[in-house]
Amino acid sequence: MEKDRLQRQLDFIMELDKEKEIVRQTYLADGSRKETDAEHAWHMAIMCCLLSEYANEPIDVAKTVMMLLTHDLVEIDAGDTYAYDDAGNATKRERELRAADRIYGLLPEEQAAYMRGLWDEFEAMETPEAKFANALDKVQPVLLNDASGGKSWKEHGVHESWIRKRNARTPEGSERLWELASGLIEKNMENGYIQRDQEPGGESPSGR
Amino acid sequence: MEKDRLQRQLDFIMELDKEKEIVRQTYLADGSRKETDAEHAWHMAIMCCLLSEYANEPIDVAKTVMMLLTHDLVEIDAGDTYAYDDAGNATKRERELRAADRIYGLLPEEQAAYMRGLWDEFEAMETPEAKFANALDKVQPVLLNDASGGKSWKEHGVHESWIRKRNARTPEGSERLWELASGLIEKNMENGYIQRDQEPGGESPSGR
Repeated sequence: MEKDRLQRQLDFIMELDKEKEIVRQTYLADGSRKETDAEHAWHMAIMCCLLSEYANEPIDVAKTVMMLLTHDLVEIDAGDTYAYDDAGNATKRERELRAADRIYGLLPEEQAAYMRGLWDEFEAMETPEAKFANALDKVQPVLLNDASGGKSWKEHGVHESWIRKRNARTPEGSERLWELASGLIEKNMENGYIQRDQEPGGESPSGR
Repeated sequence: MEKDRLQRQLDFIMELDKEKEIVRQTYLADGSRKETDAEHAWHMAIMCCLLSEYANEPIDVAKTVMMLLTHDLVEIDAGDTYAYDDAGNATKRERELRAADRIYGLLPEEQAAYMRGLWDEFEAMETPEAKFANALDKVQPVLLNDASGGKSWKEHGVHESWIRKRNARTPEGSERLWELASGLIEKNMENGYIQRDQEPGGESPSGR
């Protein structure tokens, strides 16, 4: 027998709770601890509402907010893959696709399709909404890292070229927010929290 | 000189970060730790999108989502007042109004008015959106408390009448979700995690 509609919604809602236990590499602004995926998503959803005027193209704010709130749900199964973890990133896509099938599959069919559609759109990074959401996803940790005195950058010995490579497409979502982040990256190279590469614009040995 | 618009937005956005450090009395579903205000808001925003069909009246989902994401920002200054803390609740309104003036005042004027308006609307509990948001704010901790084996109810010796009084207006937002919560409350009285009152329908000695 088909499970009751409300029960399927509740199964998904209780599954969501696990995202509160996925810890990112970014510290809170005061450096006291690392933030969780749920907190990161919450922060960016409000940022999206307040900063949408800086999107390169007009965006549907409500859609982008829900995209941001749910964009990391796959990490419930796939875990958080640190931006500069080469081995982890090699298998990330496959792990996340399996996770999406299972997690969104908990929902009633049309809600599963809606939520899965938002994630697929975020990942494809083709629409104005997905480009802006991805830009926020890159800029928010720069703001926090800067506020915490570069704590996570220092811990991982992050190089300028790693950040620049990771942010190659950030300006597609928002030139203005990328300009802001670039200024903070420059400042944190000057104070030594982000490592300058030996060759200007060069890559780290591992190609990150 | 007037502060740059983006700088005012960033001041508010970095202030938001403090909501990740406000700990509620409700445990995560697995009972491992208590959830933060930011996680609670994130959870309810997604719940709002998925459960809006159960609102008694049609609601503007996007507006209600942003209302839920920001409804606890005043706690950055005023702290989280536990639902069954009589002394704390006596001064809560005054503390929260002062907090709202300061925190929303960080934003550019029209964004401050928008965000403050959402909070005032939530608090007044008159619109369909505010009624549904308040219903979710009451039902979400019941779901988590039930999932964690009544951990917070047991710790605080919570009585049925306290919960019923706190939920007096929950059915105004959603009869269906209140019916769900009522069933869980009944179940948790049967297993002894919520205390039955001595007199049926009676009050606790402190009137909570």
